[in-house]
Amino acid sequence: MFLHFINIRCSAGMFTLTSPSLSVHSLSRSGLSAAKLLKEKGLSPVVLEARDRVGGRTFTVRNEQTKYVDLGGAYIGPTQNRILRLAKEYGVETYKVNEEERLVHYVKGKSYPFRGSFPPMWNPFALMDYNNLWRKMDEMGSEIPREAPWRAPHAEEWDKMTMKQLFDKICWTSSARRFATLFVNVNVTSEPHEVSALWFLWYVKQCGGTMRIFSTTNGGQERKFVGGSSQISECMAKELGECVKMESPVYRIDQTGDMVEVETLNKETYKAKYVIVATAPGLNLKIHFNPELPPLRNQLIHRVPMGSVIKCMVYYRDNFWRKKGYCGTMVIEEEEAPISLTLDDTKPDGTVPAIMGFILARKCRKLCELTREERMDVATKDCSFQFDMSTNPQSSLAQPVHYEEKNWCEEEYSGGCYTAYFPPGILTQYGKVLRKPVGRLYFAGTETATEWSGYMEGAVQAGERAAREVMSVIGRIPQNQIWQTEPESMEVPSLPFVTTFWERNLPSVGGFINFLGVASVLSVATAAGLLAYKKGLLTRS
Amino acid sequence: MFLHFINIRCSAGMFTLTSPSLSVHSLSRSGLSAAKLLKEKGLSPVVLEARDRVGGRTFTVRNEQTKYVDLGGAYIGPTQNRILRLAKEYGVETYKVNEEERLVHYVKGKSYPFRGSFPPMWNPFALMDYNNLWRKMDEMGSEIPREAPWRAPHAEEWDKMTMKQLFDKICWTSSARRFATLFVNVNVTSEPHEVSALWFLWYVKQCGGTMRIFSTTNGGQERKFVGGSSQISECMAKELGECVKMESPVYRIDQTGDMVEVETLNKETYKAKYVIVATAPGLNLKIHFNPELPPLRNQLIHRVPMGSVIKCMVYYRDNFWRKKGYCGTMVIEEEEAPISLTLDDTKPDGTVPAIMGFILARKCRKLCELTREERMDVATKDCSFQFDMSTNPQSSLAQPVHYEEKNWCEEEYSGGCYTAYFPPGILTQYGKVLRKPVGRLYFAGTETATEWSGYMEGAVQAGERAAREVMSVIGRIPQNQIWQTEPESMEVPSLPFVTTFWERNLPSVGGFINFLGVASVLSVATAAGLLAYKKGLLTRS
Repeated sequence: MFLHFINIRCSAGMFTLTSPSLSVHSLSRSGLSAAKLLKEKGLSPVVLEARDRVGGRTFTVRNEQTKYVDLGGAYIGPTQNRILRLAKEYGVETYKVNEEERLVHYVKGKSYPFRGSFPPMWNPFALMDYNNLWRKMDEMGSEIPREAPWRAPHAEEWDKMTMKQLFDKICWTSSARRFATLFVNVNVTSEPHEVSALWFLWYVKQCGGTMRIFSTTNGGQERKFVGGSSQISECMAKELGECVKMESPVYRIDQTGDMVEVETLNKETYKAKYVIVATAPGLNLKIHFNPELPPLRNQLIHRVPMGSVIKCMVYYRDNFWRKKGYCGTMVIEEEEAPISLTLDDTKPDGTVPAIMGFILARKCRKLCELTREERMDVATKDCSFQFDMSTNPQSSLAQPVHYEEKNWCEEEYSGGCYTAYFPPGILTQYGKVLRKPVGRLYFAGTETATEWSGYMEGAVQAGERAAREVMSVIGRIPQNQIWQTEPESMEVPSLPFVTTFWERNLPSVGGFINFLGVASVLSVATAAGLLAYKKGLLTRS
Repeated sequence: MFLHFINIRCSAGMFTLTSPSLSVHSLSRSGLSAAKLLKEKGLSPVVLEARDRVGGRTFTVRNEQTKYVDLGGAYIGPTQNRILRLAKEYGVETYKVNEEERLVHYVKGKSYPFRGSFPPMWNPFALMDYNNLWRKMDEMGSEIPREAPWRAPHAEEWDKMTMKQLFDKICWTSSARRFATLFVNVNVTSEPHEVSALWFLWYVKQCGGTMRIFSTTNGGQERKFVGGSSQISECMAKELGECVKMESPVYRIDQTGDMVEVETLNKETYKAKYVIVATAPGLNLKIHFNPELPPLRNQLIHRVPMGSVIKCMVYYRDNFWRKKGYCGTMVIEEEEAPISLTLDDTKPDGTVPAIMGFILARKCRKLCELTREERMDVATKDCSFQFDMSTNPQSSLAQPVHYEEKNWCEEEYSGGCYTAYFPPGILTQYGKVLRKPVGRLYFAGTETATEWSGYMEGAVQAGERAAREVMSVIGRIPQNQIWQTEPESMEVPSLPFVTTFWERNLPSVGGFINFLGVASVLSVATAAGLLAYKKGLLTRS
């Protein structure tokens, strides 16, 4: 189906690996993954974590009311094989996000229950337009190399455009344009006019396309971790033991001596042969570098802001929505509603009934300035009333018993969530330095990944790749082993998305109108010909 | 005339004022201006400067070959009354940039000498299109409040658009579109597709409009300082004496105690009642804040990158261009030429003949990766050959004797030059927190100014305004005295830009075509009427 979501995942701690012969510095899940791999290969990393917890943009809170709740990155799904491998290693189980009952599409003040991958479009123009939108985005994505989007044949042209411009070109109906906006909001917590078309098309492509990124079943939001997503980082940290230093934000990196010197706010100095910086690119700015970074990297890190999201959880006595035949998924297209997407967040055993909702992009920035209580008020209204169509919204069932939220915009060491976006013009001009080492500094963090960048999966890919870059440079592995593919998870296999004949061949609205135009011309011409023939104006030669 | 330029000015040091009762932290010229005002009012500021020099984005270098040269912000002009007031106070004289002889417009491989405000357009369509472009930008600008561009009547609409989109709407000819691109490159060192239309229109407006911002005579590039622009900062620093601490980058600000605590890389801790942060907004990121910044400011500072520019100076034995009847100004529209604009940089007494050239935006990023020698090679070629049309470009006159350059993209404590730009969508969502104090932190820096923001003038306005915010909060001045207007400089008076009847009334190309359309319909209708009348088909009733 089509209601899905992107994981908010590991963010800005700092991580440094040090040993007599080696040391690295990096951050959170990406950093921990790097450190784990290095330690397994017999090296002695040190991880410098800015916060008093590991996990970065994943953040599992435990309390009586919720048992546990993921306030940050939470969702995983098929093709995210690296994070699934780590979960399996640590015995962390996954469970399917509830999608048994009907979903709800709320638009123009009305709720429309539906099943399947997309809210059904009854208007044939809207149907053609939707179909063409997804098909076109995937087609364009297929031209873009995941590891080097700046080399796409149309890279320059698409990078000069915002997604809004592209949607204005592709979409003929306002309903497709409005849904396309929500698609950007939900996937990258920013607005279509804020992001480069090249970047967004790349982003969707490297997650496996529009269906994979946006689906619950068989997509990025299929599952969650029993016990919460931070467990993976916590297990890695436990395994790494003493070498993970908490509350150690790095503010200075000096590469001028024999060893790289790293200083932390808590007045510690670490020396290392190599450092992996595993923060989001923009958070490199928290560090004063000596020598200065090269010009393009110095400018890149000012140009890739993090998206804007508040994640809310509303708890109820009962999951009344299921009894009414709704699974808990709502796609809300309503300017006044703060929440754009909800998913059922009830525990796998049916306890702790809850609805999770995302406040995204423009709505997030608007609601940033409310108090927690004010937000709770608007969020709980959103979460309950659309399900409760047939009964009084004041009914006791729809009264929330608990509320949790996390505004990721306020986190200094994340800068926002889920991930960094590229405004127009940046990817083609600066993209190539995203992973380029600077002296003895190597770069990880989910933003540097080429599969599921922006997700927990990307964080692991990036951390392990950076660790292998270091291992390669010290001669432990050959260079051609730096990038590695991952075998498919046995427990969470992926299915292909099969497109129907009509999905492949339905014309776009523009194509259809052209067709109508040609058809009319042909029929008019035929009619005129017939008429002329009958009137004897056409003589046989 | 129309060849003009924007000053590169003070950038990222850090400045903290401390006293038994008061202290402030800020940066460079904006910081120094704040400190100067506070000291004059009997307070005891401390200025924390990141670099080993004051001046920030202004940077005067003295050596034998050049006597002195401004590698950063250099140009001043009428209506920049605050910086002119400071210059007068310190006895720093100004001189006019040479514009006596003809200017050169280089386009499609040919040089066209001209005089006056704009390169003459012989093609009437291009003429209408150029005229309409400037007129339209100024008209749109007139709707935008300088102190709150996000409140403009069309703020949302224009902020969702890039300048490229706006140019594509306004301009009918490719020559106007190409020149419009250069206009953005030259004024804000970024590309039309990178910047919000709302922001750029505001930027031009708060400099006094398209003519003021882009002119040498009567515009932003009219003059330079005899002896170099850094002198103003140096004089202020001298006057402030001991309280200016060099090589003191701030990495931590803690507001949790009675006094604000500020820590610097050189391991000093300063305590202050108030801090003025006078860096470019993006450089706030170099500081770890406790408590964290509020959500919108925390995100704003990731969203306002600095432009990209390399400033080059090529020195010759003789200013041969003047002898050939050229003033030294060239506007170069040629994708392969690295330099887009040159100005005569000969000293006011005629010694040290030199041409200054800007490598801007996309060209700057491309040339960042060359060595200094390679850049010298391409830059000197640009600077000489267009002037030397009638003679051999290999002539000894055109052989450079010295070269200076400064790549501002590599400066960690500037992030780029001349100023920060706003990508689409940011000004309306985050603009309102640009100057909003955070506890005891106040914000200066030229980016927070409302007149000549982005210039030395804006830095002074912002610094003095922030100082008065602090003075107001401690009860030294009433709140309504925080914002002050500046009397006009007697030495550098401004003249109004008078538009001609034709500039005001010439139709746009679109308007002209509509007019032609209406005119054709009218004439066809009239002709048809006449014919019908003659044929007796129209009968009088």
